Amino acid sequence: VERLSCGAEDAVTPPDPRLENVTIAPLTEPLAPGASLQAGVYRIAPGGRMARHPATVRQLLVVVDGSGWVSGRDGREEPIGAGEAVVWEPGEEHETRSAEGLTAVIVQSDAIVPFGG
Amino acid sequence: VERLSCGAEDAVTPPDPRLENVTIAPLTEPLAPGASLQAGVYRIAPGGRMARHPATVRQLLVVVDGSGWVSGRDGREEPIGAGEAVVWEPGEEHETRSAEGLTAVIVQSDAIVPFGG
Repeated sequence: VERLSCGAEDAVTPPDPRLENVTIAPLTEPLAPGASLQAGVYRIAPGGRMARHPATVRQLLVVVDGSGWVSGRDGREEPIGAGEAVVWEPGEEHETRSAEGLTAVIVQSDAIVPFGG
Repeated sequence: VERLSCGAEDAVTPPDPRLENVTIAPLTEPLAPGASLQAGVYRIAPGGRMARHPATVRQLLVVVDGSGWVSGRDGREEPIGAGEAVVWEPGEEHETRSAEGLTAVIVQSDAIVPFGG
């Protein structure tokens, strides 16, 4: 058994201008040749966003705390909160933002087959 | 964008005697030929456990609420709480239990490469 820490105090602020007031606590190594799956805990501070960009591979976002809005290809925002999740297709433009703050576990992998899909 | 629900009210109680007072809200289809990744939200009620069994593939357990104890191959229990995660190797015997209740996002895939590992 290998242990990992992914609390707020373990998170980093990536130098990515699309991430506004977002920290990431990585759980896996990043997507790269030989690493086809990426997982991490993403925390959006109140008023923050992961601004519109295309998904690299299929992406599962599971909201575990807080709430916000998500949009996909059509840009239409829908509310999302703890106990809800979304899947974006490879290449799909998407955005997530939050007014009150939001914590999500994100898994990126083309091996994701959404439940019931 | 595809939406999924994974709240406590969306969870099912699997007919698996190793799961004592555990519910699962599946996020993906189960592991199977053609489905190499499985993800879901697992909730252990107070006093419940996912009793000792071998991991099918590599397994990442991310505690998002509550606390409990985890053990791996050597059977030695260690406390775990929100903001902590563990990775078990394929075939590794492991157990998770909780006195106060625990919610975890579990991802199973041999493509998991633990961060910093």
